[in-house]
Amino acid sequence: MEKVKRNERVIAMLKILSNAPNKSFTLNYFSDLFGAAKSTISEDIDIVREVLEKYALGALETVTGAAGGVMYLARTDAADNYAFLTRVCSKMQDAARILPGGFLYVTDILNDPTVTARMGEILAAWYYEARADFVLTVETMGIPVALMTARSLGVPLIIARRDARMTDGSVVTINYLSGSSHTMQRMSLPKRSVREGQRALIVDDFLKGGGTAVGLRDLMKEFNAQVVGTAFVMEAATSKAKLIDDYRSLMVLEDVNEAGKTVSISPSKLFGKRA
Amino acid sequence: MEKVKRNERVIAMLKILSNAPNKSFTLNYFSDLFGAAKSTISEDIDIVREVLEKYALGALETVTGAAGGVMYLARTDAADNYAFLTRVCSKMQDAARILPGGFLYVTDILNDPTVTARMGEILAAWYYEARADFVLTVETMGIPVALMTARSLGVPLIIARRDARMTDGSVVTINYLSGSSHTMQRMSLPKRSVREGQRALIVDDFLKGGGTAVGLRDLMKEFNAQVVGTAFVMEAATSKAKLIDDYRSLMVLEDVNEAGKTVSISPSKLFGKRA
Repeated sequence: MEKVKRNERVIAMLKILSNAPNKSFTLNYFSDLFGAAKSTISEDIDIVREVLEKYALGALETVTGAAGGVMYLARTDAADNYAFLTRVCSKMQDAARILPGGFLYVTDILNDPTVTARMGEILAAWYYEARADFVLTVETMGIPVALMTARSLGVPLIIARRDARMTDGSVVTINYLSGSSHTMQRMSLPKRSVREGQRALIVDDFLKGGGTAVGLRDLMKEFNAQVVGTAFVMEAATSKAKLIDDYRSLMVLEDVNEAGKTVSISPSKLFGKRA
Repeated sequence: MEKVKRNERVIAMLKILSNAPNKSFTLNYFSDLFGAAKSTISEDIDIVREVLEKYALGALETVTGAAGGVMYLARTDAADNYAFLTRVCSKMQDAARILPGGFLYVTDILNDPTVTARMGEILAAWYYEARADFVLTVETMGIPVALMTARSLGVPLIIARRDARMTDGSVVTINYLSGSSHTMQRMSLPKRSVREGQRALIVDDFLKGGGTAVGLRDLMKEFNAQVVGTAFVMEAATSKAKLIDDYRSLMVLEDVNEAGKTVSISPSKLFGKRA
């Protein structure tokens, strides 16, 4: 077998690993691919790991033992995350985004693949240890961030629908009360989409009253699945208590002042670096 | 400035470039980042390019001139693409996926981030030259693939909704006839989401009669935007003519035989390697 040089090995290795985040590759895999000794592959891994850390571009984690190997994790730098979310907040604070009724137009930001990929990395890093089997969201606004989170976690995405379709097959449907508007809502999941005992990470775009989150948790109960985490892109800082209190969010929307044309939003306290 | 070694440069460069597909970075950017001469950076680029090509992991394109630079493109190998789609088809051919009415359960596959990321790369590679300003889809099933296509193209995703929400602001709504069921459908886009003269790439999950695709094209006319491509994950091979004929698809669904419990689906002829 032709010998492969270190430059070549580290480049191909990084691309293969980062194409499949949170998935373990054995040293044998790379050893065979490059025709190199396992000790050489170990050195390659150390080099890639150090460079990713130095430039805050992610992390390589080595798992030892029989099922051992190496995997790419999207653990980005805390200061970098804070700076990124501050930029997103400042974009959202544009007065032109204020809609009648005090709503905020953020659809473009929540659909931006660059923004959602980065948000997905941050959310995934929070929940690597929760060992979710899938990410659960409800259509439509939260889908892009939930998909990118699932991508960084290396797990499937499952989308609850407001109205079941023929292509869903048999479904489980629940009714729930919206926490903020107190209207009855409905959502459905295909029966075959979740298996008993699986672990769900709930990811949605916006937490106001918490009704939808409770609905998603109730839906998981119907499947005897376990919710191992609940996360939102934004939460509204309202005076009223929310229906859930065990969750995380990337940003806190303090206020949309329609008359004064101001929006107050900042990275969540979890980033611990408020100015 | 501390000198940075080649290993380190090629690793960081690849990660930075592949984090932002189809986006040009100047040689000066890397020259400053690594404290290296532009000629050295050029050599680094050549090394990364050769390795990506050798292992079919993507491509680096160099743009010369004043606005010059280097960018990562997800051009994957033709034989690899064909093999990937063949695997997807064989998964879809599982008789357990057949639903009453001859529908096929593929939701799990269309929501799988690994599968959709790869599909997005293939679709993006088809349309790099079309210079789309955004990818357009309609909720819900096509969103994951459309988002991943937008990610590989480095452009935003825009999602038409069946029902407009308060958070959409002013919207443009059109009515259209579903090509297959001849029922009236409706979809909306926020007025501020598209600007006159922009270039749209339509990406959706399934082409049957073509009514939705015509609807999306009509919607773009309302914005005086130009449709530069139309692509689907799957098209149904029906005897009836479709309402559109200028499109591409990844796979062709020939038949779902409910009684015989067989599904016939294969990669589209565009991959040119049918067995």
